[in-house]
Amino acid sequence: MSSLASSRPNVTISDDMIPAGFRFASAPIGIKASGKPDLTLVVADGRVAAAGVYTTNLIHAASIDWNRAAPIEQGMRGLVINSGNANACTGVRGEQDNARMAALAGASVGDDPQSFFVMSTGVIGHFLPMGKLESGIPSVAKSLSAGAVAFEAAARGIMTTDQFMKVAFRSLETASGTVRIAAMAKGAGMIGPKMATMLAVVTTDAALGSAELHRALKVAADASFNCISVEGHMSTSDALVCFASGKVTLTDSEKAAFQEALTEACIELAKLIPTDGEGAKHLVAIEVAGAASDDDARTIAEAIANSPLVKTAITGNDPNWGRIVSAAGYAGPAFDPRQVALELCGQTIFHDGQPTEFDAAALSQTMSSSAEVSVVLSVGSGPGRARHWTSDLTVDYVTFNSDYTT
Amino acid sequence: MSSLASSRPNVTISDDMIPAGFRFASAPIGIKASGKPDLTLVVADGRVAAAGVYTTNLIHAASIDWNRAAPIEQGMRGLVINSGNANACTGVRGEQDNARMAALAGASVGDDPQSFFVMSTGVIGHFLPMGKLESGIPSVAKSLSAGAVAFEAAARGIMTTDQFMKVAFRSLETASGTVRIAAMAKGAGMIGPKMATMLAVVTTDAALGSAELHRALKVAADASFNCISVEGHMSTSDALVCFASGKVTLTDSEKAAFQEALTEACIELAKLIPTDGEGAKHLVAIEVAGAASDDDARTIAEAIANSPLVKTAITGNDPNWGRIVSAAGYAGPAFDPRQVALELCGQTIFHDGQPTEFDAAALSQTMSSSAEVSVVLSVGSGPGRARHWTSDLTVDYVTFNSDYTT
Repeated sequence: MSSLASSRPNVTISDDMIPAGFRFASAPIGIKASGKPDLTLVVADGRVAAAGVYTTNLIHAASIDWNRAAPIEQGMRGLVINSGNANACTGVRGEQDNARMAALAGASVGDDPQSFFVMSTGVIGHFLPMGKLESGIPSVAKSLSAGAVAFEAAARGIMTTDQFMKVAFRSLETASGTVRIAAMAKGAGMIGPKMATMLAVVTTDAALGSAELHRALKVAADASFNCISVEGHMSTSDALVCFASGKVTLTDSEKAAFQEALTEACIELAKLIPTDGEGAKHLVAIEVAGAASDDDARTIAEAIANSPLVKTAITGNDPNWGRIVSAAGYAGPAFDPRQVALELCGQTIFHDGQPTEFDAAALSQTMSSSAEVSVVLSVGSGPGRARHWTSDLTVDYVTFNSDYTT
Repeated sequence: MSSLASSRPNVTISDDMIPAGFRFASAPIGIKASGKPDLTLVVADGRVAAAGVYTTNLIHAASIDWNRAAPIEQGMRGLVINSGNANACTGVRGEQDNARMAALAGASVGDDPQSFFVMSTGVIGHFLPMGKLESGIPSVAKSLSAGAVAFEAAARGIMTTDQFMKVAFRSLETASGTVRIAAMAKGAGMIGPKMATMLAVVTTDAALGSAELHRALKVAADASFNCISVEGHMSTSDALVCFASGKVTLTDSEKAAFQEALTEACIELAKLIPTDGEGAKHLVAIEVAGAASDDDARTIAEAIANSPLVKTAITGNDPNWGRIVSAAGYAGPAFDPRQVALELCGQTIFHDGQPTEFDAAALSQTMSSSAEVSVVLSVGSGPGRARHWTSDLTVDYVTFNSDYTT
């Protein structure tokens, strides 16, 4: 459907990109009618430090409550993920089914139910097919293995409407050896701001306590998954979890480098989500600068990102400064319209509150040939900055989200 | 383009529906390339009480600043409106052009520049063709006349992408005679919440001071124009003004009835805007009840109205409760998900936090045959209520807003 998504290059994953101390497995167990993989396990060799950030939607999946209540201070063993069914809006029975999934995953590796996070993604309002999970989880656990092939199988197993696998890797040389970060995510629709993310899993062999891992993950999520959107509709199931197997000890300065690598990996991964946005023809990279605060800049960036008029103008390769600056104008934060300047694909098209003279046909041609369209808006001389990545809004998005029942 | 808009019945306007004390005129003066009417005058027989509410967008047209600064306490004489050019983001020259429009309108009836409001609607970022206005305004003023034909000409003259004329009328019998309200509006895109309205003009022959007229207009706008959206993008030019010619004196109880009539007329007029929403197939009427406050209910209703996933589901006639309740869940206000209930086209499809058993195919058929789809969401037992009207999101909307340059 999307030329943007199909232009995504293949990724080759090698064993040395995968952190030590983890095994992965994924297989079809019959939840998806398509027969595609729908049950995935990520398991550490023993209890490890872990952290998670989750959707702030009041209407959310049973798994979100379960993960929030996880006894992280005792260490976590792993994560069981099913795709094809979100187990959301399923009441008490949904909570029981979720707990049973964790128990099956725990038992499959000889650990407690509480040592497993759970993620469920797919349609909401339907009960999980527990018969399939009762036999499927122990069966998939038998194929758990370390390394690149198993990691890739897991990354593919969590996909739903995604058109391509979403992974990101970083490595860091330290005095105690190499630290690796290997991360995977899924998501192409129901992607909105104020969220934690869609589903994403980060594994690393760094040695960090759960509390410091949580702080690092929060910093990374705020700069990445919390800065993306497709249509601005926050999911019921967004969850990002991170496991640190503790193989490599970090000095304080190495921890700072680890934070940077973790944030970069999360940004790379997060940007893949709107790149695969339903029907998307362009990834739109929005930068707002000169606001009174970072929060103000973020609010303005989100207003631009969520405007259907901005998104359709970019779909149509129209350098429509009016739609962009007027979206900033209603975002809420105060600024002086006479100080507004706008760059589109690197060209200044609005300055001192008025449009500049520019070659609209040439700029439209540049937009047309760019997979990523950059929007850089300055609203004054304040210190506030923010970045946001979104997809454009196409006929294919509307068709995909209105014609699916027919 | 829209079957919803084309199903709108014709309105027959008669002289006795038009308040005494006003004259109207509209004609093409060459601002629009199409040759359609683009210059409209609404003029009271003398200075009258007037009130206005305007867009809260920081990026706004020169006319908005002019109207906000109008010396309403001295009484206002009328309003000059051009379509085809919004005179927004045009800097100091735009402000000068706007003042000149007011001066030309004032001079054409022997009054001061400051006695005229100005509205400009159309593309933004272009200078007004002042040569055409210099000769056009005095020329159009010569055809000012009272009654239905002139009123209808004015209502048609302010249209831009509108597919049909938007008018609403009310009358009220009082001890001193009949009070009439005649109102007109334009708008089909760039319609967002937190706005005043698109362009709308209300005339009445009631005798009310400017201050009480402003209070009444604010109450009416908050229940009508501030409760509609098409795509949620707030315009740079939204303005609603009201003139009261003072022919009929009202008692206190008649003033309450006048408020009710004014609010009803504004609601009727406001609903016509999303009915004519670009590409719209359904008008979506959203009611939220049981929230902690009216503000909370309004925030939830707006989140539902602005979700592209909700809008595309309604386009596709899908009773997709999940998209609706999850939009409520991320809106912000706190509520207990277990108390949520949802009616769609009068049928309960979600209750106690879970979907009910319902015939989805039959309900989809009902949606398909309904021009107006009602969404009634209860989020608890609080006193907060709100209503919001929006359009669905269709392939035609995206085509219209992305392919316009090609």
